[in-house]
Amino acid sequence: MQPTVLDHAESRPLRFGVNYTPSQGWFHSWLDFDPDAVRRDFDDIAGLGVDHVRIFALWPLVQPHRGLIRAAALADVRAVVEIAAEFELAVNVDALQGHLSSFDFVPAWLQSWHRRELFTDPDVVQALADYLEALAVSVADQRNLLGITLGNEVNQFAATRHPDRQQVTPDAVQAWLHQLIAATRQGISDSAAVVTHACDDAAWYDDRSPFRPEHVAGYGDLSVVHSWVFNGAAQTFGGLGDGSVRHAEYLLQLAAAWHVDDDRPLWLQEVGAPVNVVAARDVVSFIEQTIRNAAGVRGLWGITWWCSHDVSRELRDFPELEYDLGLFTTDRRPKRAARAFARMIGEVAQAGDPAASGAPAADEDPAALVLDDTDPTYRSSCSPGGAFHRAWLAEAAERGRGPAIVLRSRVGARTQHPERDLAHATDTQLRGM
Amino acid sequence: MQPTVLDHAESRPLRFGVNYTPSQGWFHSWLDFDPDAVRRDFDDIAGLGVDHVRIFALWPLVQPHRGLIRAAALADVRAVVEIAAEFELAVNVDALQGHLSSFDFVPAWLQSWHRRELFTDPDVVQALADYLEALAVSVADQRNLLGITLGNEVNQFAATRHPDRQQVTPDAVQAWLHQLIAATRQGISDSAAVVTHACDDAAWYDDRSPFRPEHVAGYGDLSVVHSWVFNGAAQTFGGLGDGSVRHAEYLLQLAAAWHVDDDRPLWLQEVGAPVNVVAARDVVSFIEQTIRNAAGVRGLWGITWWCSHDVSRELRDFPELEYDLGLFTTDRRPKRAARAFARMIGEVAQAGDPAASGAPAADEDPAALVLDDTDPTYRSSCSPGGAFHRAWLAEAAERGRGPAIVLRSRVGARTQHPERDLAHATDTQLRGM
Repeated sequence: MQPTVLDHAESRPLRFGVNYTPSQGWFHSWLDFDPDAVRRDFDDIAGLGVDHVRIFALWPLVQPHRGLIRAAALADVRAVVEIAAEFELAVNVDALQGHLSSFDFVPAWLQSWHRRELFTDPDVVQALADYLEALAVSVADQRNLLGITLGNEVNQFAATRHPDRQQVTPDAVQAWLHQLIAATRQGISDSAAVVTHACDDAAWYDDRSPFRPEHVAGYGDLSVVHSWVFNGAAQTFGGLGDGSVRHAEYLLQLAAAWHVDDDRPLWLQEVGAPVNVVAARDVVSFIEQTIRNAAGVRGLWGITWWCSHDVSRELRDFPELEYDLGLFTTDRRPKRAARAFARMIGEVAQAGDPAASGAPAADEDPAALVLDDTDPTYRSSCSPGGAFHRAWLAEAAERGRGPAIVLRSRVGARTQHPERDLAHATDTQLRGM
Repeated sequence: MQPTVLDHAESRPLRFGVNYTPSQGWFHSWLDFDPDAVRRDFDDIAGLGVDHVRIFALWPLVQPHRGLIRAAALADVRAVVEIAAEFELAVNVDALQGHLSSFDFVPAWLQSWHRRELFTDPDVVQALADYLEALAVSVADQRNLLGITLGNEVNQFAATRHPDRQQVTPDAVQAWLHQLIAATRQGISDSAAVVTHACDDAAWYDDRSPFRPEHVAGYGDLSVVHSWVFNGAAQTFGGLGDGSVRHAEYLLQLAAAWHVDDDRPLWLQEVGAPVNVVAARDVVSFIEQTIRNAAGVRGLWGITWWCSHDVSRELRDFPELEYDLGLFTTDRRPKRAARAFARMIGEVAQAGDPAASGAPAADEDPAALVLDDTDPTYRSSCSPGGAFHRAWLAEAAERGRGPAIVLRSRVGARTQHPERDLAHATDTQLRGM
């Protein structure tokens, strides 16, 4: 077995990448696959100084029928990985898209008359496993394969607010993750690639979400965090408020709180500057502060910016903010955000390993906050503007660094932390614990 | 302007064709478009002695985004039309698929978070019009273009029983048909091709269907009929019962009843032998009787069998009957049905124009039945096993030919028919009117 991709991190303090949104035709470009167009886009991306890209298959194009996994579609994914290698970019491949920038791509065999449960129907889950394994097999021998993520925020399909909600319990989520991760590992065989899954922040903030923090922190090789400040953070605290520019840092600390293994790595797999809530003039500062703050979190493996290229306005119906998240325009000119992001990559590299430079583990952080995860509404409390979030921000403001987080359910297990009565903790009580 | 495609009918009594279901990959084969595979399939089809095929674009592949109509997808459709010309096959192109053999293919821009009304949202209908016009433009100059159908049984999306029903009133159906047919005509320009739309039999049998008989009979260049005896006809009357083998004939007579122009042509655009209700040993007889009976209907332009090739059982989740409707197997061997169909084409050609051989117009048919279309439940009465259907079958049994049908709402307007009191017509009363 090769050394895992994670070991590469030894040669640099933090990995940087971008989520690849094709400049021409967005993800519909899979239908008109053009290796040279990918090559041009990857040339843009490599110029930023990043070391990896995250790419997104369109599930209905790869598996348009239960029983049909298209070899040509897998070959196209493999070709993108090969092109990335030309630019010395590692590649993470996401499979179950699924959800992308407000659009749901679900194959016909799961829709309408054939509507079935995505998370619990055994035939469906087996078909997903088949897809993941086949996708993994198709790229497993690529030396620049970083990893495979089950899919982009697949948990959104189980959200209460989803217009066609898929039913699933937390226990069934575990079974689903277990089966699909196992199938993917089977596919990558002895490759160095990692296997992950990705949730939006409902896992942390929505009391009703069947995808829970322990799923993020317990399944896959890294804990994956997607940080979007349009979720109320920027609306509440302002685009450059601490609640926004520390939002990624905060989510990373939250994820770390659920780690059983202190050495489990964290991946800030999506973070971006949405101009509906971050003023255009503030984007550069948002990028700088967000990256500086997140980079200080112990265990952070890498930051993958959303996204590489803007979406063409010829493609209708995106939420307004989605058109403008790119580091490059649709005609491939770098935006100010691109230069800021590239500068930050250099700054972080020069500063050396931020973890080595002093970010304390939870056990050693005197400012660590205790989160009462035994309260069934703890996720509301964690959500932007909630009591726990505000307590964490107050501590961060005082110390200039967001505090580590300790779960109440585990306090007794950690000898460094005397057990205290946290059942009725208020903002004030929580501060400094 | 060229003579219309319909004029070709002068050279032979009745047109025969098949609905083209690709032998490899079903309609997913658009994703792996292989002209030689199409060529092989069309070679099979041409060997039957048919003169046309009906082909089906996959709408989400041609228009994957509102604002994006893929030139490559249109080129593929055009290529199929060109390949058909190699075999002297005319081609009808259906656009909004939409619904195919139980699967609904709907683009992501109309699903889930982006769910919008297919029939009434002005932006959506304009996008459909753009698609239809672009598709029409892409094939308009092909001399073997038979026509364009808006889509396969798009009315299914408005059915009460549809799991994700689209709302539409009968008036809105008219507006939708008007706009889309106009856009398609604009696209075909001065081509000889026809423009049609196609409904399943809910238009005739379901009192709640917003797509009504007058829409079938009043929009597009021909009245299009799809005849499927799995709708209760075969279950009620047996696979070889009159209710089954006269089902296509009956629907054609129903459609003709709504014609304002007696010369308006009828197209039996779909008819097939579903082996869930027609025993395998009866398929040949079903084909023979169905075609003989339908061929006698005055004004019939053509019969297009469903379908060319079986569906591979590797493709899961089809209703059982759908796997076995082909005239050819998936490895392109002709089935007994293929030989029967080819024989019938020869038989009908030898018999000459069945309309000329004596099928009377409604005005001249002494056995014409009056349908009380002023009764809001007349469609239930028309449905398989309903009172009107049984009356029509009784008359057919007596005379050896299904009678023409006259609408009560129009009886006064037809001088040949003395007005009678039909308000409380029973089976018996209806017979012989």
